[in-house]
Amino acid sequence: MPAFIFDLDGTLVDSVYQHVMAWHAALRECGFDLSVWRIHRRIGMSGGLMIRALARELDMPLDESAINRLGELHEQEFRRRIPSISPLPGARELLAELREREIPYILATSGTQANAGPMLELLGRADEKIITREDVKRAKPDPDLFLAAAEKLHVKDVEAMVVGDSVWDMLAARRANFLGVGVLSGGYGQQELEQAGAFRVYADPEEMRRHLDELGVREE
Amino acid sequence: MPAFIFDLDGTLVDSVYQHVMAWHAALRECGFDLSVWRIHRRIGMSGGLMIRALARELDMPLDESAINRLGELHEQEFRRRIPSISPLPGARELLAELREREIPYILATSGTQANAGPMLELLGRADEKIITREDVKRAKPDPDLFLAAAEKLHVKDVEAMVVGDSVWDMLAARRANFLGVGVLSGGYGQQELEQAGAFRVYADPEEMRRHLDELGVREE
Repeated sequence: MPAFIFDLDGTLVDSVYQHVMAWHAALRECGFDLSVWRIHRRIGMSGGLMIRALARELDMPLDESAINRLGELHEQEFRRRIPSISPLPGARELLAELREREIPYILATSGTQANAGPMLELLGRADEKIITREDVKRAKPDPDLFLAAAEKLHVKDVEAMVVGDSVWDMLAARRANFLGVGVLSGGYGQQELEQAGAFRVYADPEEMRRHLDELGVREE
Repeated sequence: MPAFIFDLDGTLVDSVYQHVMAWHAALRECGFDLSVWRIHRRIGMSGGLMIRALARELDMPLDESAINRLGELHEQEFRRRIPSISPLPGARELLAELREREIPYILATSGTQANAGPMLELLGRADEKIITREDVKRAKPDPDLFLAAAEKLHVKDVEAMVVGDSVWDMLAARRANFLGVGVLSGGYGQQELEQAGAFRVYADPEEMRRHLDELGVREE
């Protein structure tokens, strides 16, 4: 039987676009006018890595203190937008079904514990097992988060599958040697996810829940 | 020599995500909790058609007055977000170069005249030639906007090319028998645009401007 490692933002909660707009606002406050789609395409990486990558690509000179300031501004801007975030359709039901069928799963996010907390509350699972940015040295697209998640699952001889909405999830999954399952709910297109290694792509957790048998989850 | 018909939101100005969040907020105010990515994937259609399509897909019962109320709420929410909108990189320069080289072009948007106004101001072209929602019976993905645009260009024996960021632009372009050129700046993936008929895809107006020769624009 497989075990599942779930990304959080864009995969279980509908928070990607709020993160995108929060980064956009933070960058503007610091005088950087970056196109919104370029931010969207980097969400899912750790915030620090994203900012460094964008700065390098766009030749924006950023020192360590500017990067820290951007991170703080993003936190503030994101917190303002939390009231507009909902769980994705079927997310609660999918996790409930996995628990009921005793299929192991865990969450793993490039975000901080502080940002994950309100998202877990939206899912009605404040005490859910989760690996966050603080638990590993490098966040996605490095495989560390998913490797730590698999270790914490304490499950042997299972095939771990990573469920995520971004190409960074799929890339980190391949680097950890796990299969990748994509969801469209973060706003990437199906072909982008497939090209990054997703072996199945569903619209959202609701559609995934109705197709668990395609992922090797069998009736006992 | 070709002539160009440009979409506005997501193609020349960086306003797609603000439209997405404005629709999301309007829908929530009316009690509908729609995933943000589903709204994103419909932007570029006329607002009325988008709402009708989403309502049908999701089995949300919406009467005419609810659709009108949603439209008004979207207008309000979008207006609040205008200060966070910038021209896309290279947009002003691309239009300036076309004017200088006497290559005919026109703008065509599924949006209203009222929403187009502030976007044209951002481009420094308040009096730019533009076809809006009010000028045609049906907006994208119907071809009417682009056919009206070509007519207004008053240019014969040219190959009109439609430049847009959404699959609805590409679909309407094909229905009007014009070539489609995609830009990634609205947040669609390259393959989505190509699959919808884009024969070239550029990151944004800046990249298109540097590759005009690929589109049949020749040095005199």
